[in-house]
Amino acid sequence: MTNLLNEQKINVCIQGLGYVGSSLGVALGSAKNNNKLPIFNVIGVEKDTQNGKKIIDNINNGKFPFNTRDKLLIKKFKETYKIGNFKATSSHSAFSKADVVLVTVNCDIKKKGELLKINLNSFKYCISEFSKKIKESTLVIIESTIPPGTCEKIVLPVIKKNFHKRKLDPNKIFLAHAYERVMPGKNYLNSIINNWRVFSGINKKSSELCENFLTKFINTKKFPLTRLDNTKSSELSKLMENSFRAVNIAFIEEWSRFAEDIGIDIYKVIGAIKQRPTHQNIQNPGFGVGGYCLTKDPLMAELCSRTLWKKRNKFLFSKKAVEINNAMPLVSVNKILEFFNNKISGKKFLLLGASYKEDVDDTRNSPSKILYSKLLSLKAKVEVHDPLVSFWKEANINPEKKIPSLKKYDCVIFAVKHQDYNKINLNKWKPAKKNFLFFDANNVLSSNQIKIINKSKLNIISIGRGNE
Amino acid sequence: MTNLLNEQKINVCIQGLGYVGSSLGVALGSAKNNNKLPIFNVIGVEKDTQNGKKIIDNINNGKFPFNTRDKLLIKKFKETYKIGNFKATSSHSAFSKADVVLVTVNCDIKKKGELLKINLNSFKYCISEFSKKIKESTLVIIESTIPPGTCEKIVLPVIKKNFHKRKLDPNKIFLAHAYERVMPGKNYLNSIINNWRVFSGINKKSSELCENFLTKFINTKKFPLTRLDNTKSSELSKLMENSFRAVNIAFIEEWSRFAEDIGIDIYKVIGAIKQRPTHQNIQNPGFGVGGYCLTKDPLMAELCSRTLWKKRNKFLFSKKAVEINNAMPLVSVNKILEFFNNKISGKKFLLLGASYKEDVDDTRNSPSKILYSKLLSLKAKVEVHDPLVSFWKEANINPEKKIPSLKKYDCVIFAVKHQDYNKINLNKWKPAKKNFLFFDANNVLSSNQIKIINKSKLNIISIGRGNE
Repeated sequence: MTNLLNEQKINVCIQGLGYVGSSLGVALGSAKNNNKLPIFNVIGVEKDTQNGKKIIDNINNGKFPFNTRDKLLIKKFKETYKIGNFKATSSHSAFSKADVVLVTVNCDIKKKGELLKINLNSFKYCISEFSKKIKESTLVIIESTIPPGTCEKIVLPVIKKNFHKRKLDPNKIFLAHAYERVMPGKNYLNSIINNWRVFSGINKKSSELCENFLTKFINTKKFPLTRLDNTKSSELSKLMENSFRAVNIAFIEEWSRFAEDIGIDIYKVIGAIKQRPTHQNIQNPGFGVGGYCLTKDPLMAELCSRTLWKKRNKFLFSKKAVEINNAMPLVSVNKILEFFNNKISGKKFLLLGASYKEDVDDTRNSPSKILYSKLLSLKAKVEVHDPLVSFWKEANINPEKKIPSLKKYDCVIFAVKHQDYNKINLNKWKPAKKNFLFFDANNVLSSNQIKIINKSKLNIISIGRGNE
Repeated sequence: MTNLLNEQKINVCIQGLGYVGSSLGVALGSAKNNNKLPIFNVIGVEKDTQNGKKIIDNINNGKFPFNTRDKLLIKKFKETYKIGNFKATSSHSAFSKADVVLVTVNCDIKKKGELLKINLNSFKYCISEFSKKIKESTLVIIESTIPPGTCEKIVLPVIKKNFHKRKLDPNKIFLAHAYERVMPGKNYLNSIINNWRVFSGINKKSSELCENFLTKFINTKKFPLTRLDNTKSSELSKLMENSFRAVNIAFIEEWSRFAEDIGIDIYKVIGAIKQRPTHQNIQNPGFGVGGYCLTKDPLMAELCSRTLWKKRNKFLFSKKAVEINNAMPLVSVNKILEFFNNKISGKKFLLLGASYKEDVDDTRNSPSKILYSKLLSLKAKVEVHDPLVSFWKEANINPEKKIPSLKKYDCVIFAVKHQDYNKINLNKWKPAKKNFLFFDANNVLSSNQIKIINKSKLNIISIGRGNE
């Protein structure tokens, strides 16, 4: 890690070029020192699979590998491409020159019957691969969300074993956990650079090196770092903050159903409650919870307590939250069924939005998928539009490119708050069929759009807005 | 309500002189207009019971009826006493002169086997009593926490019935719900005046009158009012914000246990998470949840859905939160038992704190009570100290006045964060017995106090701070 101290470029290897890894590559590649020179030379390492190769080719050909609406991310990526300091490869030899290895590979949870299992094998394999190559004193930073204890109980032993084999000094292993808090959407890159980071090393030196590294590309003046006592604290912190969010979404779910039932507009009530600074984190109701983090992180702690620590912490709230949030899209299906008197077989639906969140192309665990499958199972005909998704892997279809005319449909479901849907002029985009239903599952429509629908005396149902 | 518009004093009757009612009386009594003259003439109405009479006598003799550490409250109370514009009575004839009636009586939940029941009878009785006396156009404001729908479905019909009997104009009934957000403790009065209020009337005129009234004694310039669409929204809002809090306390409970089990200081992790503005409302772990609101409000919604609305909203999270929070003090008992190898029969405990919160004398649903009863049932000997509580009703004892010497005890339990306990000099206040335990159940001790204990090599266990 001597390079961290002098003027030479620091070699960083990012293991895993998913959403986070690729964007981190851009954040690092575009970081400059006081002389406006690039600080880092970044090499991303991906698997030698079809998908991996595509990502690698894209990056090496100046194309950001994901569909994004973050203009800054694209601009900065192009800059790094020009300078040539963010490249991708599948060759593990890249690790041998690294001053820093950043691990952003996934650590997934799988269901095995009723029991949850975490697949640490592929994660361990990744650790093992770079451990065979890295120099002594390379700083290893795990960015992945992992069970508390993983750095100490799994990562470190794997590196040690390989250092022992390679006759390297085990005192020259520097390992830290530092998790990101990226916000997928229009400000992805910004949410890497301008955000508070939490980290910890396995020892003092590792913590110091990690702090020094993070300070070089994160705006730590405005967003100070938090250094915790040990890596398990940092690992726990990530799980806990995502579980906090998931639980608060599930909490709103029960109040929102009641509010609808008794004719209360829950959005207005939440607005009133949010006035209190002590209650500002209260969530809005919604269509469902998707993506990679909130659907899995709250389950990880219980799993980890049971397996890594042989304890029995139940994590009732965190687990129940995932269950409730998973069932959220079915609330919309039930309301639709009720409206059509349980007769939706053969009816034509237009589903607007396939991704799990506005302004992203990520469809993993998307609530739209749950709704889509349920409607299909009820023999409804569903066509899907999403401005950002060209191939919907989970549903194995190509969503429409253009927002279709409403003419042939019985119902349109607004599922994702993509900006495109707020731009629809409802004075022109009109249904033709009788008893047509506008269904706003996710607070997508503006008050102006709702006004137009009401003025035209068309049917509208909105999640969270009760009508007595 | 004509008086609201001219220079005469506005007659306000407060029904119920508990903690909230008495303090509201002071807030109103000390409100001044631009000419520095009192705006209101306040009469508090209490029941003709032993306790009621005591409160009435106290107020009429210049003594605030509750033990409080809020110096401003006492000062302002004395001012109103001097001016003579806050008096108390048990006579219902007071209502006949009221321009405004403020209802702050309790609406309690009782357990009937497994089922919860709400006792609306005594609440209805209170409404009925003033309805027999008030003039046309008196503004009635319900401040009590009540099930959503109560103003419309219960209060209004009762007033109407009485107006009908008295041949008064039912169009001259003005009714609103406006809930308080007082924070018991040192800043009680301040938390009435400098706080955001949520309200709604049963019709436009009622809302307007209520808004006008609130503006006269609340600092609405800095803390704007939120007017909701209907009284049920305002009623729901109160329940929901307290349930949000209760759920987030219960959420921390499960993470705190895990953190202790695997040797993590959860306070530090929470500190790291709180850096995110989106996560600032995350709670700290604690000893338990007590008081009048958080122990009951989260149960009210399910009860109300079932009874007032004939719906079936389960409110799983909100109900489970109360269950978990009720069990919290037993975690402390278990840790104490573990420390003493399950042998605590005959051991001497000093319990510091009987109230449910720091700097208040309110012992209702105090977690200390749960711990106290459990220790007694295990045949331990428990002595209690609380600087603010002279008679602990729930435990039927007189807590010590002075913090006793530690000499005869086997364990001291810090249960309430009263300022007195932070002032204890642990260099002087030392145990005599071997294997003595300092048990910090509620993050009471300062880091300096903890340092002293550790330096003296004495035993200490703190909730939320894990030791591997």
